[in-house]
Amino acid sequence: MAADLFEDALFGALVGDPAVASVFATERTIARYNAVEMALTRALAAEDAISADAAAAISATLETFSPDIATLRAATVEDGLPIPAYVRALREAVGPPFAEFVHLGATSQDIIDTALVLALRDVNDILAGRLGRVIDALDRLGGRYGANPMMARTRMQVALPITVGDRIKAWRAPLARHLTHLNGMGERLDVIQLGGPVGTRAGWNGRGDRIAGHMATALGLTDPGAAWHTARDGLGEYAGWLSNVSASLGKIGGDLCLMAQQGIETVAFAGGGSSSAMPHKQNPVRAELLVTLARYQAAQLGGFAQGLIHEQERSGAAWALEWLILPQMCVATGASLLTTQSLVGTVTRMGAQPASPDRGATDAEQALAHRP
Amino acid sequence: MAADLFEDALFGALVGDPAVASVFATERTIARYNAVEMALTRALAAEDAISADAAAAISATLETFSPDIATLRAATVEDGLPIPAYVRALREAVGPPFAEFVHLGATSQDIIDTALVLALRDVNDILAGRLGRVIDALDRLGGRYGANPMMARTRMQVALPITVGDRIKAWRAPLARHLTHLNGMGERLDVIQLGGPVGTRAGWNGRGDRIAGHMATALGLTDPGAAWHTARDGLGEYAGWLSNVSASLGKIGGDLCLMAQQGIETVAFAGGGSSSAMPHKQNPVRAELLVTLARYQAAQLGGFAQGLIHEQERSGAAWALEWLILPQMCVATGASLLTTQSLVGTVTRMGAQPASPDRGATDAEQALAHRP
Amino acid sequence: MAADLFEDALFGALVGDPAVASVFATERTIARYNAVEMALTRALAAEDAISADAAAAISATLETFSPDIATLRAATVEDGLPIPAYVRALREAVGPPFAEFVHLGATSQDIIDTALVLALRDVNDILAGRLGRVIDALDRLGGRYGANPMMARTRMQVALPITVGDRIKAWRAPLARHLTHLNGMGERLDVIQLGGPVGTRAGWNGRGDRIAGHMATALGLTDPGAAWHTARDGLGEYAGWLSNVSASLGKIGGDLCLMAQQGIETVAFAGGGSSSAMPHKQNPVRAELLVTLARYQAAQLGGFAQGLIHEQERSGAAWALEWLILPQMCVATGASLLTTQSLVGTVTRMGAQPASPDRGATDAEQALAHRP
Amino acid sequence: MAADLFEDALFGALVGDPAVASVFATERTIARYNAVEMALTRALAAEDAISADAAAAISATLETFSPDIATLRAATVEDGLPIPAYVRALREAVGPPFAEFVHLGATSQDIIDTALVLALRDVNDILAGRLGRVIDALDRLGGRYGANPMMARTRMQVALPITVGDRIKAWRAPLARHLTHLNGMGERLDVIQLGGPVGTRAGWNGRGDRIAGHMATALGLTDPGAAWHTARDGLGEYAGWLSNVSASLGKIGGDLCLMAQQGIETVAFAGGGSSSAMPHKQNPVRAELLVTLARYQAAQLGGFAQGLIHEQERSGAAWALEWLILPQMCVATGASLLTTQSLVGTVTRMGAQPASPDRGATDAEQALAHRP
Repeated sequence: MAADLFEDALFGALVGDPAVASVFATERTIARYNAVEMALTRALAAEDAISADAAAAISATLETFSPDIATLRAATVEDGLPIPAYVRALREAVGPPFAEFVHLGATSQDIIDTALVLALRDVNDILAGRLGRVIDALDRLGGRYGANPMMARTRMQVALPITVGDRIKAWRAPLARHLTHLNGMGERLDVIQLGGPVGTRAGWNGRGDRIAGHMATALGLTDPGAAWHTARDGLGEYAGWLSNVSASLGKIGGDLCLMAQQGIETVAFAGGGSSSAMPHKQNPVRAELLVTLARYQAAQLGGFAQGLIHEQERSGAAWALEWLILPQMCVATGASLLTTQSLVGTVTRMGAQPASPDRGATDAEQALAHRP
Repeated sequence: MAADLFEDALFGALVGDPAVASVFATERTIARYNAVEMALTRALAAEDAISADAAAAISATLETFSPDIATLRAATVEDGLPIPAYVRALREAVGPPFAEFVHLGATSQDIIDTALVLALRDVNDILAGRLGRVIDALDRLGGRYGANPMMARTRMQVALPITVGDRIKAWRAPLARHLTHLNGMGERLDVIQLGGPVGTRAGWNGRGDRIAGHMATALGLTDPGAAWHTARDGLGEYAGWLSNVSASLGKIGGDLCLMAQQGIETVAFAGGGSSSAMPHKQNPVRAELLVTLARYQAAQLGGFAQGLIHEQERSGAAWALEWLILPQMCVATGASLLTTQSLVGTVTRMGAQPASPDRGATDAEQALAHRP
Repeated sequence: MAADLFEDALFGALVGDPAVASVFATERTIARYNAVEMALTRALAAEDAISADAAAAISATLETFSPDIATLRAATVEDGLPIPAYVRALREAVGPPFAEFVHLGATSQDIIDTALVLALRDVNDILAGRLGRVIDALDRLGGRYGANPMMARTRMQVALPITVGDRIKAWRAPLARHLTHLNGMGERLDVIQLGGPVGTRAGWNGRGDRIAGHMATALGLTDPGAAWHTARDGLGEYAGWLSNVSASLGKIGGDLCLMAQQGIETVAFAGGGSSSAMPHKQNPVRAELLVTLARYQAAQLGGFAQGLIHEQERSGAAWALEWLILPQMCVATGASLLTTQSLVGTVTRMGAQPASPDRGATDAEQALAHRP
Repeated sequence: MAADLFEDALFGALVGDPAVASVFATERTIARYNAVEMALTRALAAEDAISADAAAAISATLETFSPDIATLRAATVEDGLPIPAYVRALREAVGPPFAEFVHLGATSQDIIDTALVLALRDVNDILAGRLGRVIDALDRLGGRYGANPMMARTRMQVALPITVGDRIKAWRAPLARHLTHLNGMGERLDVIQLGGPVGTRAGWNGRGDRIAGHMATALGLTDPGAAWHTARDGLGEYAGWLSNVSASLGKIGGDLCLMAQQGIETVAFAGGGSSSAMPHKQNPVRAELLVTLARYQAAQLGGFAQGLIHEQERSGAAWALEWLILPQMCVATGASLLTTQSLVGTVTRMGAQPASPDRGATDAEQALAHRP
């Protein structure tokens, strides 16, 4: 077990999400920094804050800019973030006479936050695609088993007969709403950060809003009209969404664990976990994992919400709390979706099965027997 | 100190919110149960699931129905919720021959959840109104002091001069977004719950969706098309919103605490807390409370998110967790808004003040001195 | 549903804990304030910080002191806590010439924190007694049903046969450890708070430590040797204990929910909740509630831990977060214990039962059939 | 930014803790598995559950056993944990005729949990050593600056003059208590896990307790007398301790941020973070990080507490939640301690400094001026 289970050599293939994690890989982070500085540079030139020659020189450098990571890492210890060293390195790479126009009027947070928004866009492409595929997989599951009878259970007690399709419908509905909500929050989430050192856009002689507009367009984002250095409500809503998705999938996993119990047996899986002591067992490992991830996310959400309280014009303390939590939440939601896809794919039966010598009445039969 | 600080005899006038709390008062809860049963009854009649005479008799009873609370309280110990006893009492009040048509085809959760949505609508009327008033108060504050200079601080260090208006603008922006988000989530929040015992709307011979449509219209809500007994994503998003609002206000409170420090003194308040030991102090009690409430909400949000994982067709365990947490979150957000209104109203100065014999240079003067 | 479910007219008899809640009733809070001021007064006299006559006069007043609650409530809005107004009222009641010796050298936090410790002592008397009774009840349960066979389940799958006694033993063991831990944390928890306005014990001319010693003895507490105004680690450990107890009981509740499932049926209860729609059901309401309370506590613990970060010599913001959370955690742990006692008392069968026409094979029989 | 900030190439040198993280490195995890199987093997032989020859063969293999990690990783996807594949590989390495005596009577959880306890022992060696060094560093800081005057602040307002030593004393006291508590919880934490497949120690024909005793002695742990597969209270207490330590250090960091504010200036640091936009700034990066880590831990604690609710004889869902959270909490507490050591070492002044032309009156001077 490594400290980060998602990346653990032993557990990572079960609980991790390489695709989402790779969005946060260092080279992609640097590429996003470059993209943000590029968009800023061109926006500055479009508003004559820097010359076209300066913009061309800086842009050309950015095309292939690859700063020394060890230098950035070392500087982060002092600076709290890598952007000051990144900008120094970029200025050095650009060289005179245009070095001084690099990052003009911007602040570290403009770069890191906009780069984060770009990262989340990549994450959301993955997550939205997977949500669609999970919905499709549930539809296929419903197509195969939806007509089978099963017992509804309320408060963990036999209630009344339903069909497998009824339960699948209850699983599916929130997933569609999550997609709707994800689209709806775009106006609060898919926005550039641009404010300059104290968030006022004052460093560009009144042209800040227009520069922001150009920059947003170049990056395929929108300009929220002001910096949000300390107003993290969009990220707060997004973290809630991540947790909400994992919760919906956790419900599926929890249900499947309950359905797989001997004595209930409303689902069967191909494969399933083995035990070091009890070779007869077929453990619903992935179904349990969905519950784990959902509870993990809920806890992280509580932590992320603590990080929404930023002081003054920039909070180092609250901001870094986001960095500790949000990428892991992205991975966990990604892992929830991956795991659901895998798990649903292993279902070999849902709903009532015929009674047989080695087991009792079906759940549905029992339920009828329990009717008054 | 009582167990619930919001209702404590000593602390309640500071930290509580009587208006929001009263939404959850027992008589109003019963009134909502009545309203939901009334809407259901009329919807049943509209679809001929019950006769017009039955609907008239039940509706007439509901107009003035006031069940014995002690009976409901005692029954809740056994049943886990008051609706079974409420329905029994309502049936008794209606009497033969129409008693059997009371609550026809519905389940306890249909009543409690729809009643909760109605409660949240009342809460949101209060909260949205207050959000508007806080925005107005901030605008007035900006009108009075917005042009005053102050020092921006980033990472708690002097950064560059800004105006008071710059900071107020940063406080205000997320509040407007919260109003937008509240409106946007209506399609996921302002929805009736109607599913019947196992959430399938199967108890009305195919007319369930049409009954739901009538019921929703009567209550001024929409029909989400299916029960959401175990799909609590709408409430999850809403809890996130409550926490998000408190966080934005917590940032204002935290900033005001920092601004009120001697040596910084960028704000002054009329009144302020006294100390049992140090009569010279003017404690920014309400500003601190905003931070408290924001952190309280973040923790509750983490708990609420744990409660999103409902099993099977109804989870007693997860559902009750919502009941423990969500009303308190409504009160806390209400209290955050009330406190912000009061606090903003006590501001007597913002931004730099002239140096005087008993204090040092202003924050802005110091900042200039720190420029390189 | 009221905002505070523990005190709700409809739900309170199920989820509340009147005994623990009453520890935090206003009159008992005031009585504790009086007791702390009394102990301080006598300690001051013992060290000649005030005269014996002053101590006698103040003590005599405190014997029957009952300040006007409305006055304290109103003052708390300004002061953030009721002690300044309480001290003013007490001084007024004592009158000249001794009024000025009331509360001498102390600060509000000395009174509130020491009073809290006294409250927790009362709470812990209740909780420890109940823990003992739950252990006894489990022992009796083991005596009645312990020899019955049942199936162990791991990862929710049938594992190997065990006895009911094996499972009860696993439930019981942590409860005994909780009692051990509660006793062991006394040195960090059962301590007076005395520091004076800035926590240095400087207000008593070098006699602060001796005054603290007298005060501690009078209250049956110990003197930790210094104020802990901002060092809340003892309370942090205690909040963890409260959550830990509820978690152990939540495991019992969760297990009983699983055992009560039709198809598993390893437990039967007398009574049980009814349903508004399905009269055949016997819902394990109290077992579910144990899970609810355990999850509630875990969330509160996360919030309480946020409140441990106090700034400077006194944090209004962090301190009030404790007030919002800790009493409710006491109630929730109390409710967990009450609920467990009730629930265990309703068990009418544990372990395997004979097969019968209206149900399938017993859990144990099925398990054998599943062996390889 | 990588998904796990502690291991991020850019941020890891600031926020990570290589020493604590390395405890959870795969090769050390495998070494602990080997150590646990070795202790079990010898304990089995000591009680004649296996022959001395079998024990010798297995032990000899374990001395150098290094299973293929890719195989374990792949198997974990199916099994939910690596032990089944580890045991298979170990049996293969031992070969006939003794392979069958490997892991005899034990279950995966026995190995993983005991190995975790061994890991925590290594972690605690590091943490306890650092706690001692932080205490020493604070003592040295007190020795250098303790006599300097500074202003106490309560509720963020100037209160009364104290010395730097007074504040350092308040920082230091809880750290000593944390060491006491760590030692005191050993009886609940430093315990082997041994229960066999369903936690009853039934697999060794009545010799389970004696085998556990030998195993515990060999590992330098104690035998709690029964398995605690589902009773995670010891880990719950420990997680609380980790969070409690970080909270105490977070208070130091928060205070230092406040002390470093221009206008307060009660501390100065050598070095400090630079800004990409404001070269005059000296950001208290490490002090902020202490606050971040404290809040991170509080959130994780809330999540860990959710994971204490294990069902039946083994919970895959709840157990895996521990794996996601606990190692990261160890790293975060380690990072808190490392950061505190570094930060304290950079202090170049504490307490009042003489007034100078480019700043106002000292904090203490101002405070005097504010006295009534």
